[in-house]
Amino acid sequence: MNIRFAQDGAGVDILDQTALPSREIRRIVRTKEECWEAIELLQVRGAPAIGIFAAFSLAVLARTLPMETPQAFQGAFDALADYLESSRPTAVNLHWACKRMKAFARDAVSCAAPNWDGSRELLLSQLRGEAQRIQDQDVVACKFMAVRALSRIRDNAGIITHCNAGPLATSCYGTALGPLILGAEQGMKFRVYVDETRPLLQGARLTAYELQRAGIDTTLICDNMASSVMTQGLVDACFVGADRVAANGDVANKIGTSQLAIVAAHYGIPFYVVCPTSTIDRPCATGDDLP
Amino acid sequence: MNIRFAQDGAGVDILDQTALPSREIRRIVRTKEECWEAIELLQVRGAPAIGIFAAFSLAVLARTLPMETPQAFQGAFDALADYLESSRPTAVNLHWACKRMKAFARDAVSCAAPNWDGSRELLLSQLRGEAQRIQDQDVVACKFMAVRALSRIRDNAGIITHCNAGPLATSCYGTALGPLILGAEQGMKFRVYVDETRPLLQGARLTAYELQRAGIDTTLICDNMASSVMTQGLVDACFVGADRVAANGDVANKIGTSQLAIVAAHYGIPFYVVCPTSTIDRPCATGDDLP
Repeated sequence: MNIRFAQDGAGVDILDQTALPSREIRRIVRTKEECWEAIELLQVRGAPAIGIFAAFSLAVLARTLPMETPQAFQGAFDALADYLESSRPTAVNLHWACKRMKAFARDAVSCAAPNWDGSRELLLSQLRGEAQRIQDQDVVACKFMAVRALSRIRDNAGIITHCNAGPLATSCYGTALGPLILGAEQGMKFRVYVDETRPLLQGARLTAYELQRAGIDTTLICDNMASSVMTQGLVDACFVGADRVAANGDVANKIGTSQLAIVAAHYGIPFYVVCPTSTIDRPCATGDDLP
Repeated sequence: MNIRFAQDGAGVDILDQTALPSREIRRIVRTKEECWEAIELLQVRGAPAIGIFAAFSLAVLARTLPMETPQAFQGAFDALADYLESSRPTAVNLHWACKRMKAFARDAVSCAAPNWDGSRELLLSQLRGEAQRIQDQDVVACKFMAVRALSRIRDNAGIITHCNAGPLATSCYGTALGPLILGAEQGMKFRVYVDETRPLLQGARLTAYELQRAGIDTTLICDNMASSVMTQGLVDACFVGADRVAANGDVANKIGTSQLAIVAAHYGIPFYVVCPTSTIDRPCATGDDLP
């Protein structure tokens, strides 16, 4: 797991994505400032992963909060969640996970209030359980999306992807890379073209690393090469993830996604946005109605 | 001038494009190996500039060739041209300029043959004159193209360009940047978006440098940002150069050009390829019939 509780229960153990692909460094973040920085510096990135990490951070840091009264704890917990949310204002999963943890904490505190002094450890354990459920649901969502998206491609297909929407961005297969990694596990072969994804090179640094680890034939290309690869007939489908899908079907994702979609449409190549719906409780692969 | 004869007449004085934009280094190349390397290492690059540089190199190196007989000289001259041509097999202007210089040398040697011993200096001077004519014609071509292309845009237009097709690639205004630099000289304002042009960053290193020197409002963007800039209504026209235009109108240019054209077409934005026709003796701006 990219994100897990530290063995002593007092920190979150993460794979530092800024050091990849040259070094695989795990870090344990223990303070709220370290958690905030891990998001802000992109040590943890990827929409689902950020949400999972925020929930783990809240569960771990809860034991450092004042617990004299239920009100004091709840106030401090909410303030902590608000603080973490400020690390990346555009990350919807971050806000979603913090909101879910705050609501869960309110219910749990309310149940614990009549016997407050005796409930501290149970409450902390419940918060940890809720964070774990968020991660478990992501795993289920990834597997569900991977199975559905895999049905859209055949063995030996040529695929293009943009940015990183693989295991590093989630807690399992990823979204866009899910069908490829699942297919590879089942013995299928793919040729995958990976956009560098300037300016931060998530494709070059993360996606190429993940696909190669999965034993998939991977070719790193510059972002401006997609048309050239497509015109040679090398691409059968595009798979990308999404930061968010609006109710009308509009997709927000890494810069360059719309450009890739326009070029794919020009060549008549199917373009799939693989992502959960508005909450990860109800996962599905979108793109069903796309060309 | 980016390319000129060294003051002692025994070398070609060039601006080393590999050191830009951080350093403006002029180098004098004197041997055939140095001339070959200057092209191969992209110290001189840009379709017209390579042709001009090859002609200058041949004119300068001619004085190092055996001159016992007309046949010996012509054979050595042809071999030298063939050697230079091998530095960048895909550069059509390189082959065009070498072919022109070889044909010119054949005529000049033929005229000089009856009085061979007394004609050496005249022959070398004629070769130098022919190289200078190639450069002079490029200057005329650039001005002609700039005037025609400028008629397609209005003051305060937003422009996007890819790779480098400016003064560095020619001996005057350049091709794609010609209308912008000419317009700026006439007091017009433009907002120009410059694609980085991965993998060698000719846009970031060279085009942005040239436009800023010309006092033009320049924004460097990643290659994958064109769609995002266009969808905001910031782009009125695209200007690119070309390595070559085929008889049927097909254009060969830096990777990413077709992608930009497809995205521009999606948004209904005019896309102009500014280039001379098949020889620089008959310059014109293409793109007249493009949307």
